Amino acid sequence: MPQRISVRVPATCANLGCAFDCAALALSLYLDIHVTPRGDRSISVHYRGVTPERIPADETNLIARTIRQTLESWRKLRGYDLEIDNQIPIGVGLGSSAAAIVGSLAVCHWLADTTLFDEQLISLAARLEGHPDNVAAAWHGGFTVSVQQGERVLAFTCPVPETLKLLVVIPDYTVPTEKAREVLPAQYSRGDAVHNLQRAAVLAAQLFSGKAEFYRAFFDDRWHQPYRASLMPGLSEVLKFTHPDLLGLCLSGAGPAILAFVRGAAEEIGEAVRSILAQHHVQSQPHVLAADNLGAKGWSLPA
Amino acid sequence: MPQRISVRVPATCANLGCAFDCAALALSLYLDIHVTPRGDRSISVHYRGVTPERIPADETNLIARTIRQTLESWRKLRGYDLEIDNQIPIGVGLGSSAAAIVGSLAVCHWLADTTLFDEQLISLAARLEGHPDNVAAAWHGGFTVSVQQGERVLAFTCPVPETLKLLVVIPDYTVPTEKAREVLPAQYSRGDAVHNLQRAAVLAAQLFSGKAEFYRAFFDDRWHQPYRASLMPGLSEVLKFTHPDLLGLCLSGAGPAILAFVRGAAEEIGEAVRSILAQHHVQSQPHVLAADNLGAKGWSLPA
Repeated sequence: MPQRISVRVPATCANLGCAFDCAALALSLYLDIHVTPRGDRSISVHYRGVTPERIPADETNLIARTIRQTLESWRKLRGYDLEIDNQIPIGVGLGSSAAAIVGSLAVCHWLADTTLFDEQLISLAARLEGHPDNVAAAWHGGFTVSVQQGERVLAFTCPVPETLKLLVVIPDYTVPTEKAREVLPAQYSRGDAVHNLQRAAVLAAQLFSGKAEFYRAFFDDRWHQPYRASLMPGLSEVLKFTHPDLLGLCLSGAGPAILAFVRGAAEEIGEAVRSILAQHHVQSQPHVLAADNLGAKGWSLPA
Repeated sequence: MPQRISVRVPATCANLGCAFDCAALALSLYLDIHVTPRGDRSISVHYRGVTPERIPADETNLIARTIRQTLESWRKLRGYDLEIDNQIPIGVGLGSSAAAIVGSLAVCHWLADTTLFDEQLISLAARLEGHPDNVAAAWHGGFTVSVQQGERVLAFTCPVPETLKLLVVIPDYTVPTEKAREVLPAQYSRGDAVHNLQRAAVLAAQLFSGKAEFYRAFFDDRWHQPYRASLMPGLSEVLKFTHPDLLGLCLSGAGPAILAFVRGAAEEIGEAVRSILAQHHVQSQPHVLAADNLGAKGWSLPA
């Protein structure tokens, strides 16, 4: 008897300042996908959640397309009704497409009873997404670091300490990832290359040793934020903001969302960041969130 | 009553392939410095150890100079007899100058009864040495990652698992660090920058989580080894050598010494590397060593 399958995948913040195209962490904002088999071979989409006007509710939907394409390649396609509940804002650097891709592959993995090991799922998701960082964190949860080795992605994960609060400030505009990549330089000086590498290694060392002893300097970036600031009014000023409870601050992914690591006063810091952006005529909304240390989860019920 | 002070500092391997100017680990090869106060303000040097013909035994000696300069800047200079016992080969990329500088500062710290906190000692040593990686590992022992932030160095350390064997193959020629830096490019492509950053973050993640689950790919480097290979006959071939017990292989520091992480068959792998170098007319000597997880140590006895 076919079953109803549900999958929950977290939002993710990639790059974390210094660790460009390498590190990411998962956030307590979710995409839920519920799948019920149907008699024919079509895929229907019912969407509830943020910005429904931007989400196609037909077979061009990213989740519908990814499920179709994956199951076809495995010669296991049937028809499905998809219900999508989505809390992850689109196009702001919070890994909405990584969540959609990972969620779709997880659905396929359970629907088709085809065991994908971690490395296979992440490698396939990274190929569809174009880079490994968000998909690794969306699948594993916690803090992840990834290595792309040809077609293969090796990803490692550790929990983010519960004591750390994650403040996300989401501006009311979007920046396509491709546009945010176009402004990046093709080359980096050796000094700038070493600058980020040192910080990414130290950030990974801190989190993988279970510590949250952050210095502001760890998040300092010379590879993407200084260039992307031209597309994001107020970002340069926000990156200079200091507060005794603010441990680190960076662009989330390709932005424009901003991620802050705080040990307290999250509302106060959120309000301060919102107010700096407002001075640059950018409306935004702060959200105090937690890390998601579980990653993608699935369950099934009789249809 | 003035005391005889002794300091022991380990050799170090920096860079570790991908983690250029950032990571290092300490090895079970040592520099020992014994200091006895004397009546006048001069510094005498007695040297025992490797390549004595290359070590000045007067006040131009690096250790004598560093001690003099440091104590003068603190206005605490007196005269000393130095006995130096050194197992660390000079000019092959095993951190001999980092050991000399860290050892000298440690001597000063104890002689002058001037407490240098970890960060101060490492920052000062990094300024004298020119980069932070070797000095951080020489002071802390174990595996270290460092961030240079202006004049300040933040260094983090974790033990290297005891199960890991470290094979060091030392060719019979030297390469000055400056010459090994001259061959490096001024710029890296974004792809090459990300390549090393991903691997350095994953290497730090593995070691700081207490694991030694290495993939060969972790050590793969595009920033320095491919360029330095032009100065080091046989290096390219050695970097391609594989063996089931060989977990990783890289240049130690700026070379020409080669470091291999092995889980067994260390003698066999050492002999294979020696033989590849011999085919390129380079004589070399393999040494099976362990990590030093203690770092710089000092003790004193009544003079």
